[in-house]
Amino acid sequence: MKAIFVLNGPNLDMLGIREPEIYGRETLADIAALCAQTAARLGLAVEFRQTNAEATMVEWLHEAYREDAAVICNPAGLSFFSVPVLDAVKILRTPYLEVHISNIHGRDEFHRHSMTATAAKGVICGFGSYGYVMALEALARQMPGK
Amino acid sequence: MKAIFVLNGPNLDMLGIREPEIYGRETLADIAALCAQTAARLGLAVEFRQTNAEATMVEWLHEAYREDAAVICNPAGLSFFSVPVLDAVKILRTPYLEVHISNIHGRDEFHRHSMTATAAKGVICGFGSYGYVMALEALARQMPGK
Amino acid sequence: MKAIFVLNGPNLDMLGIREPEIYGRETLADIAALCAQTAARLGLAVEFRQTNAEATMVEWLHEAYREDAAVICNPAGLSFFSVPVLDAVKILRTPYLEVHISNIHGRDEFHRHSMTATAAKGVICGFGSYGYVMALEALARQMPGK
Amino acid sequence: MKAIFVLNGPNLDMLGIREPEIYGRETLADIAALCAQTAARLGLAVEFRQTNAEATMVEWLHEAYREDAAVICNPAGLSFFSVPVLDAVKILRTPYLEVHISNIHGRDEFHRHSMTATAAKGVICGFGSYGYVMALEALARQMPGK
Amino acid sequence: MKAIFVLNGPNLDMLGIREPEIYGRETLADIAALCAQTAARLGLAVEFRQTNAEATMVEWLHEAYREDAAVICNPAGLSFFSVPVLDAVKILRTPYLEVHISNIHGRDEFHRHSMTATAAKGVICGFGSYGYVMALEALARQMPGK
Amino acid sequence: MKAIFVLNGPNLDMLGIREPEIYGRETLADIAALCAQTAARLGLAVEFRQTNAEATMVEWLHEAYREDAAVICNPAGLSFFSVPVLDAVKILRTPYLEVHISNIHGRDEFHRHSMTATAAKGVICGFGSYGYVMALEALARQMPGK
Amino acid sequence: MKAIFVLNGPNLDMLGIREPEIYGRETLADIAALCAQTAARLGLAVEFRQTNAEATMVEWLHEAYREDAAVICNPAGLSFFSVPVLDAVKILRTPYLEVHISNIHGRDEFHRHSMTATAAKGVICGFGSYGYVMALEALARQMPGK
Amino acid sequence: MKAIFVLNGPNLDMLGIREPEIYGRETLADIAALCAQTAARLGLAVEFRQTNAEATMVEWLHEAYREDAAVICNPAGLSFFSVPVLDAVKILRTPYLEVHISNIHGRDEFHRHSMTATAAKGVICGFGSYGYVMALEALARQMPGK
Amino acid sequence: MKAIFVLNGPNLDMLGIREPEIYGRETLADIAALCAQTAARLGLAVEFRQTNAEATMVEWLHEAYREDAAVICNPAGLSFFSVPVLDAVKILRTPYLEVHISNIHGRDEFHRHSMTATAAKGVICGFGSYGYVMALEALARQMPGK
Amino acid sequence: MKAIFVLNGPNLDMLGIREPEIYGRETLADIAALCAQTAARLGLAVEFRQTNAEATMVEWLHEAYREDAAVICNPAGLSFFSVPVLDAVKILRTPYLEVHISNIHGRDEFHRHSMTATAAKGVICGFGSYGYVMALEALARQMPGK
Amino acid sequence: MKAIFVLNGPNLDMLGIREPEIYGRETLADIAALCAQTAARLGLAVEFRQTNAEATMVEWLHEAYREDAAVICNPAGLSFFSVPVLDAVKILRTPYLEVHISNIHGRDEFHRHSMTATAAKGVICGFGSYGYVMALEALARQMPGK
Amino acid sequence: MKAIFVLNGPNLDMLGIREPEIYGRETLADIAALCAQTAARLGLAVEFRQTNAEATMVEWLHEAYREDAAVICNPAGLSFFSVPVLDAVKILRTPYLEVHISNIHGRDEFHRHSMTATAAKGVICGFGSYGYVMALEALARQMPGK
Repeated sequence: MKAIFVLNGPNLDMLGIREPEIYGRETLADIAALCAQTAARLGLAVEFRQTNAEATMVEWLHEAYREDAAVICNPAGLSFFSVPVLDAVKILRTPYLEVHISNIHGRDEFHRHSMTATAAKGVICGFGSYGYVMALEALARQMPGK
Repeated sequence: MKAIFVLNGPNLDMLGIREPEIYGRETLADIAALCAQTAARLGLAVEFRQTNAEATMVEWLHEAYREDAAVICNPAGLSFFSVPVLDAVKILRTPYLEVHISNIHGRDEFHRHSMTATAAKGVICGFGSYGYVMALEALARQMPGK
Repeated sequence: MKAIFVLNGPNLDMLGIREPEIYGRETLADIAALCAQTAARLGLAVEFRQTNAEATMVEWLHEAYREDAAVICNPAGLSFFSVPVLDAVKILRTPYLEVHISNIHGRDEFHRHSMTATAAKGVICGFGSYGYVMALEALARQMPGK
Repeated sequence: MKAIFVLNGPNLDMLGIREPEIYGRETLADIAALCAQTAARLGLAVEFRQTNAEATMVEWLHEAYREDAAVICNPAGLSFFSVPVLDAVKILRTPYLEVHISNIHGRDEFHRHSMTATAAKGVICGFGSYGYVMALEALARQMPGK
Repeated sequence: MKAIFVLNGPNLDMLGIREPEIYGRETLADIAALCAQTAARLGLAVEFRQTNAEATMVEWLHEAYREDAAVICNPAGLSFFSVPVLDAVKILRTPYLEVHISNIHGRDEFHRHSMTATAAKGVICGFGSYGYVMALEALARQMPGK
Repeated sequence: MKAIFVLNGPNLDMLGIREPEIYGRETLADIAALCAQTAARLGLAVEFRQTNAEATMVEWLHEAYREDAAVICNPAGLSFFSVPVLDAVKILRTPYLEVHISNIHGRDEFHRHSMTATAAKGVICGFGSYGYVMALEALARQMPGK
Repeated sequence: MKAIFVLNGPNLDMLGIREPEIYGRETLADIAALCAQTAARLGLAVEFRQTNAEATMVEWLHEAYREDAAVICNPAGLSFFSVPVLDAVKILRTPYLEVHISNIHGRDEFHRHSMTATAAKGVICGFGSYGYVMALEALARQMPGK
Repeated sequence: MKAIFVLNGPNLDMLGIREPEIYGRETLADIAALCAQTAARLGLAVEFRQTNAEATMVEWLHEAYREDAAVICNPAGLSFFSVPVLDAVKILRTPYLEVHISNIHGRDEFHRHSMTATAAKGVICGFGSYGYVMALEALARQMPGK
Repeated sequence: MKAIFVLNGPNLDMLGIREPEIYGRETLADIAALCAQTAARLGLAVEFRQTNAEATMVEWLHEAYREDAAVICNPAGLSFFSVPVLDAVKILRTPYLEVHISNIHGRDEFHRHSMTATAAKGVICGFGSYGYVMALEALARQMPGK
Repeated sequence: MKAIFVLNGPNLDMLGIREPEIYGRETLADIAALCAQTAARLGLAVEFRQTNAEATMVEWLHEAYREDAAVICNPAGLSFFSVPVLDAVKILRTPYLEVHISNIHGRDEFHRHSMTATAAKGVICGFGSYGYVMALEALARQMPGK
Repeated sequence: MKAIFVLNGPNLDMLGIREPEIYGRETLADIAALCAQTAARLGLAVEFRQTNAEATMVEWLHEAYREDAAVICNPAGLSFFSVPVLDAVKILRTPYLEVHISNIHGRDEFHRHSMTATAAKGVICGFGSYGYVMALEALARQMPGK
Repeated sequence: MKAIFVLNGPNLDMLGIREPEIYGRETLADIAALCAQTAARLGLAVEFRQTNAEATMVEWLHEAYREDAAVICNPAGLSFFSVPVLDAVKILRTPYLEVHISNIHGRDEFHRHSMTATAAKGVICGFGSYGYVMALEALARQMPGK
């Protein structure tokens, strides 16, 4: 069974602490557990990771390419100006789903326009941790490729 | 049992016909059926409507306000320059979820920035008709208000 | 005695409910009553209407043209991107006075620049429902044409 | 014999009255007559309509789609910010010809850039009512599809 | 009885002379008289002043703050780029009403966007000298604070 | 009989070869023949020319001024940044009609906004070579001056 | 003999000291002497003044209006954002000539676009102190009004 | 012992009163005392002044030039559009240090980009009244000229 | 005696005819005569030329370089987007004076910002044909190099 | 005794070598020593670090959060487009002071607007290495939290 | 043996003289010789030309099309606003290589964005005359078509 | 013999796989081999590296500085928003040559303007892997420093 990559970007390791009025009180461990449990329910395997490094994110996307794994990604602060991550997303042949915990459409000028989302298959934002569940379920129902 | 309003904007009555390379081959009737069936499964009531008129959309949002109904809306062409729809969304006390069939982040300059999404609780785009299912399920799991 | 048209745009039927921190607690019925009573005091007739539809607003402006009636208008959400309403305003030979309940100069990017105001004889904003009284009194004192 | 749709947008019912230094003294009835007479000469049927409502325009374009009719359209004030009309134009398989009575290239900032024209087969502007004749003749000479 | 400050900015001492096609033939003395007479009618005291100096305008606004006086102000040429006047307006706890003789919304690029109006309670423009009367009456009817 | 000037700008001598998916397969000789034949039918004389040089275009427009000839012009690449051609167009007292083979409204950022069209009497674009016929017929029906 | 007003704006009292690589080594006294001597040669009277205050500049322009005097003005730092000076210039019925010591077209973003120059009869820049002589001679040769 | 000029711009005389949530509760007298006491500690003389007038600020900067005095300046509202103050700063040969009480980088569009800061030796913002102390100490440690 | 080059750009051969409300009734021959007569008075030789061709203007500037001749130039429509002319101006070691008959600062968006003026020694605009006289006199008084 | 974090971004390890006309001749070791010595004088502990990696900077900011340490940061090249660093700064509850060696307000377009500074408590720029001392002293005097 | 066209735009005939700090001291003759010698070494024929005229450049590109010749072009000042040259480049079926002597990426706003480069196969800039050698060698190694 | 650094940025390890319609089918190993073989032919040593990390790229540039090595760099996705890489390039005293496999001038808005190229000695783009050979040969022919 091929795992789905669930990749999280910078500062998400501080979830629950970081601007809780925007991001809520749940921690990344809570989300990892939620994903594990959802994956179990759906019969999926999940590879859940977080990094603060652009390069690591790029390389995990390459790894997903090589393993032909679908990707659910919350690039967080890398969404807005990281051309390397955008370019890595474009390499994928599998679906790339982007998740944002907050509704970025309604945020400030630095957090409003996701550049990486331009290359996504689908984008979910504003649903908090539940957005990850939505993405997993979307993949479980076999949405065709990127 | 309070119904969820599922509101569809201009040209969605032409779904299946309209630019199928972007919007796919499903019709709005297919989506209505999908919503009905999803709602049945989730024990929800759904009020599914489509209009080509901004004023009607505004008034349905008022109606949702009065009936205290959650709203799932694909404003389609009204997303981009309709301040009346944006203002009507802001009146709601219930969750407003916006759905787009295509991933608008990756489209042309006229279809890229949804103004109504700035007032949404959550936004789902690029998942085709399945986006409606995702929104219904999100509501079924009792996400708190707008 | 020729009536003055007092025309109200989208969502104003929700006044008192809609974002009360911006628009206050008065309802449109209160404003209609205020206008009626002001008109009576000034010896004027008033035709007070509200619509959520751009086309209806356009046609009421045409009607005002044909009846040679002065117009007091709060185009609300139609102020910002409605070229049809702007064009209808430009047809008038009578004074067109624009009223906004809130001070739009101090609002967000979507509600700041009224396009229809560019064709007005005079603009009043930020005075709440009293702005309508001000406009009626201005007309009563026979301000010359558009 | 399949009719050609000749569709006219907001405020064109006020032609002859509306800003005559820009739009001239002819009325819409004059243009309808001119179209009828031109169509007769060319052996064409013409369906001539005017609306102030965006939704009606959208639906007439759908009707044209269903009847496989070519469209000559002067969207007037809907040309500039109406994504619903633009989207409806894109559905058509038949030629969509856009006509403007005045030369919009030389007008003010609100009337200069037609968004709907970006999806046209051909655009004619500045020729007054004669622009409709030009469009009809262009269709009569069997220009291939959109 | 606390006086209302009626403050006039640069070049308004030239009223009646200055671009009469825009500002009309009335002089500032006429407006002062009109204000005095209106104030008398309303039982108000008015402190009517004009200055060409930004610093004086700033200091009169400070004086209004100290005397807890409401302010009616036509900042004229200071409306557009004077951050010192804007900052002084923001200090006030009393209502600040901005009056413009012409409708600035319809003017050229240098006279269109009033920066000081962003901090106003209400704005009146395009009503000529009568705008001052409107502002005085608005204050007389005890509109609550800034 | 005064000739109508039909002037063609840079690269139009390569028509039929140049980006045929945009400009079609007809050559400029075909268009010249079409114009000649149309002129003959309409009882007009036509002076058909092409140049790659801005200066020549400017001087032909001067010549048209001196001969009091109407002008049909496809400035091609000179439409977008040539102030000399724009200035020469403005000198004309006769009608200046601009023709573009493709619909420039739908093209890329360098070919979208014709500066010379701002000074035109009428503009026709997207009709291929038939646009020239339309322009000639428009002149034949004696449209009044520029 | 009516005097010509030669008005100098902020920091010009520091000429010779202020950024000499841009403005040269001459002092304002040198320029005053040069103007006096030029005026004597031309049989003109000159009223030469300098101020660092916007309000004073505005009032000198009013004075010029009342005395029907032509104006040569180097508004210096007031050229770029002073609407009050622009408005005062527009009041004049006499010629207003603007002089800049340096060539402002080639300077940095804050010193490139003179707003007051938009209302000038003529503008001279880059000629150093000699620009004042040029302006005086231009007036001496009786150029007609503003 | 040469005094250091500590110059304060418009509205700073209202400190403690003016928008205390941004500027705090200290008054300008408190800051003057703090500067005097800091200067005494450092063996410096301080010339502490405040003005609401651009011209006065310009002239104080000239005076600083003539007295070869270093300048600590909080131009307040003059920071953003005053080219005269910018030009006066550029004349100085001594260090010009700019102090802002609030962190202007995080403020609204009118208070974000200090034009005068572009010509500063150093800029301190967001430290409240303590910013003046920092600037004095910086000078006391003999930082070399502008 | 080295001649001064007086170079005139596109459409100036139509002077007197071209938009006389902007450019006046004088012809280029009048200006040539005025220059000849001024040059004679000043003991200068003048080489007066006009071209509609950018390339010719470029080559005349090269010729001026080789002959070490000062240049007075009215680039007309080439001022605004011609990088070749700008580049040729930058080659000169002699003064380059730019003359515009109208005050371009007050004109429309296409004629407002002279790119070639950024490389000028001095710029004169708005003085009609007399601007050429001013430029010649400026050179006669031996202004130092470019 | 809780240490203050002094964090340095990319290329600061090359200080003394890197563009010395902008950044001076001091090395980062000199600055570390200066900080150590200042901290000793003030009775503070300092944790002085440099990294070229965005991720490391993000993680050091997290560490500062966990240790409740105040932060002095020169993000260098990360100031301008790094949303991850901005987001990490926003997590802090302790003061974040930003230091730039050069005055970034006066630099080129890529180095002018610090995005991370928008979330700072205070910003110091242009004081060279001494800026670090200023920041340490500011913290030593117990400025209250972020 | 088919010749390669090496085409040079405006002002390149002044190379060695023109702004040598940017373009160096070599002349165009030196570059022609360098190309001839490189071509000889590579067994290529070279057609080396220079023009100051846009039209000539356009026609040489047409000639290259007809002769099926590869093109190496330094459009110089025509790179930035010449749509005619851009359009001519697009006609080519052979490789079009653009060469700039200086690195245009680092130059001023008028010389930074080459419009013609958008249609190039490859671009070389900043290598001085050696850039031509690089382009010739690139062609010699048979890079496939445009 | 000092090695030339050939540095490759993010995602170039995926070459041959990544968007082959843009970047071609060659792998980075192919390019490394090509560089090795070219270097051997030219008698150069080459240090060929790839990284996905901005920090590593920055440090390799520092290493090149210390070893006084010339640099050939394809920063890939780091070209567009990485100020750290730009700053590191500016430190170099040796030539910095930038290579892009595709012609970035003709790509989308996120890949069009290389910020790092503004500090390059020379830029080569669009030549595929052969661009590296061109850069090596350019260095072999001893182009003088940065």
